[in-house]
Amino acid sequence: MSILLREDADGIATLTLNQPEKLNPLSEAMLAALQGQFDALMEDRGTRAVVIRGAGKAFCAGHDLREMAAGRQAEDGGAAYFRELFAQCARMMTTIPKLPQPVIAEVHGIATAAGCQLVASCDMAVAAETARFGVNGVNIGLFCSTPMVALSRNIPRKHAFEMLTTGGFVDAERAGELGLVNRVVPEAELSGAAQELAKTVAAKLASAVRVGKRAFYDQLEMGLEDAYAYTGEVMALNMADADTAEGIAAFLEKRDARWKNPD
Amino acid sequence: MSILLREDADGIATLTLNQPEKLNPLSEAMLAALQGQFDALMEDRGTRAVVIRGAGKAFCAGHDLREMAAGRQAEDGGAAYFRELFAQCARMMTTIPKLPQPVIAEVHGIATAAGCQLVASCDMAVAAETARFGVNGVNIGLFCSTPMVALSRNIPRKHAFEMLTTGGFVDAERAGELGLVNRVVPEAELSGAAQELAKTVAAKLASAVRVGKRAFYDQLEMGLEDAYAYTGEVMALNMADADTAEGIAAFLEKRDARWKNPD
Amino acid sequence: MSILLREDADGIATLTLNQPEKLNPLSEAMLAALQGQFDALMEDRGTRAVVIRGAGKAFCAGHDLREMAAGRQAEDGGAAYFRELFAQCARMMTTIPKLPQPVIAEVHGIATAAGCQLVASCDMAVAAETARFGVNGVNIGLFCSTPMVALSRNIPRKHAFEMLTTGGFVDAERAGELGLVNRVVPEAELSGAAQELAKTVAAKLASAVRVGKRAFYDQLEMGLEDAYAYTGEVMALNMADADTAEGIAAFLEKRDARWKNPD
Repeated sequence: MSILLREDADGIATLTLNQPEKLNPLSEAMLAALQGQFDALMEDRGTRAVVIRGAGKAFCAGHDLREMAAGRQAEDGGAAYFRELFAQCARMMTTIPKLPQPVIAEVHGIATAAGCQLVASCDMAVAAETARFGVNGVNIGLFCSTPMVALSRNIPRKHAFEMLTTGGFVDAERAGELGLVNRVVPEAELSGAAQELAKTVAAKLASAVRVGKRAFYDQLEMGLEDAYAYTGEVMALNMADADTAEGIAAFLEKRDARWKNPD
Repeated sequence: MSILLREDADGIATLTLNQPEKLNPLSEAMLAALQGQFDALMEDRGTRAVVIRGAGKAFCAGHDLREMAAGRQAEDGGAAYFRELFAQCARMMTTIPKLPQPVIAEVHGIATAAGCQLVASCDMAVAAETARFGVNGVNIGLFCSTPMVALSRNIPRKHAFEMLTTGGFVDAERAGELGLVNRVVPEAELSGAAQELAKTVAAKLASAVRVGKRAFYDQLEMGLEDAYAYTGEVMALNMADADTAEGIAAFLEKRDARWKNPD
Repeated sequence: MSILLREDADGIATLTLNQPEKLNPLSEAMLAALQGQFDALMEDRGTRAVVIRGAGKAFCAGHDLREMAAGRQAEDGGAAYFRELFAQCARMMTTIPKLPQPVIAEVHGIATAAGCQLVASCDMAVAAETARFGVNGVNIGLFCSTPMVALSRNIPRKHAFEMLTTGGFVDAERAGELGLVNRVVPEAELSGAAQELAKTVAAKLASAVRVGKRAFYDQLEMGLEDAYAYTGEVMALNMADADTAEGIAAFLEKRDARWKNPD
């Protein structure tokens, strides 16, 4: 059985972290498997939305601590190994905003440390009412320094600081208030809600979503003037798309759009 | 009848987008009219607060799609036209934070696409309970790439991403929770609430508000050390104002300030 | 009686602003006293958390206006004096994120102008239900330009702008919703809640908290790629800590960690 399952339906790729007995850790193998799927998705025009979920009783409990402890046996005490491990993890996390498809985290049980980072790194997140979130590495002496990069770009800084230094959990409702998840639903409706959100974005003109998503993250790191100069060009290019012309024409004529290249 | 009305009372300029039959689109003419008013306000020391509202049943439904579709008839398919149109729009939006007066959006009905961007670009916003907000260009194949510049600087990123890629609406209460509007009031009280807020800021020492507003947006784009070095100078200059000296003296003497140059 | 009291217990330093009859103003002397304590804390490995509170009926009412008015008597109208005063204040405020210990504001009564800035500058804040927050210098003609640096990095920008230009107060519950404070408690439980939070973070591995806190603020000012490159190194270094190795081993063996250097 693969540690990462992929199911495709209606243009939606659903990736399931599948090591439930270990709470779906982001081991080297899991990071590589996710990176492999993401690399394939990068050029995959048929897939228009991605859902990431976990098998078993939790979404993801972060790095594989047993594997990390073993990595320490190297001559340098693991220094080179850890450096490469965190780089590999950051590569995977930062690939998500670069993917052409919107990526939705479907969260149940716990999402801790790098598992919470994975939620924060996704474009959107849907959580079960019973889900809980933590960046609790500090409890074992390992501050969640890489998870905080994603977390602190999702929620207000005083709350991020509290989560990081107390190692405490926040429940789904609170995660919703803070901006870490988009919506909270009863656990029984979780997969349905994630798929529904995926279906909604998958139904849009893919070329528009693709350029828009890229521009979204790029402009976030720019000053206001640069952001407008850049996105103005993006809008002008978007207008040059024949399908966009058709979309606007259809709207003005109060009819459905007939898109040639919906992917 | 002008497409942009201006009414002045008690140092407050109220601008009304006035093409209600088309839901007050930001056509070339409307953009130019707004820019004209803003350029005049830039040096207008008698005006101390600005309210922007819409006539008819909506605040603003964004760009004028019919005009844009027509722009496509040029030899280059409209490329130069669209580039200039979005630049014109960005110029108008980015003039708002540069204005010496606080600018308040008074929102009822819908504020969509560039109309939602206009709300996000204003310094503050008051909304009717029935108002709805969307950056829904994606629904017709035109991702709201320029509106997202302003929107993503107002609300948490996962929620901005959701609005942009689902094309869905958020209601006024939700907009209030997310930070897109400052307060939500019954529709019958909307204009009163916007004018009340305008009156409150118009009653302050205008020179202090002017330097403070400019510094507010400038320092937002700086690192912490630079922001403090810069605003420390701003505070020192503010202290050199004779009216500020009077304001502080009046406070210490528990009396009303007698400002010489309240503008 | 000193204007700044310090009490130490269980690795927690509690600093009490102690000029209650003047609402604990950030006078030159108070700024110097705080800076002195912070400079000492910088190398103090025995102290693992800091609480800042105010004696009497308020947390802190900002700068000492009487002292500032007197500063105006210099030949240059106080220009050099004010410049140095705001630089001294910014130095104190920006030392807080640089301290190795988490710093918690314990807020009751009012926190206004630079007093509100002090709350915003702390890593975390706990407030009494009855506490109120304002950056109300605009009311006397002195825009809170330096306080806004900290405030606008804590709460959504439209709300920061409203507080700055209206000079109005927000209550504790609202401050909690906006992200200015972490939690709100009945006034009778305030000190207990602040100490409890301090105890929680003081119980963590201090070396991990120290590197994590520094990385938290550093990475906030970086782009995503740089932030990950930097924090990846921080994580690798954190892993090289023998106590972190013990913390992970203890977790895997389901026992309590035996840390050699808990400071």
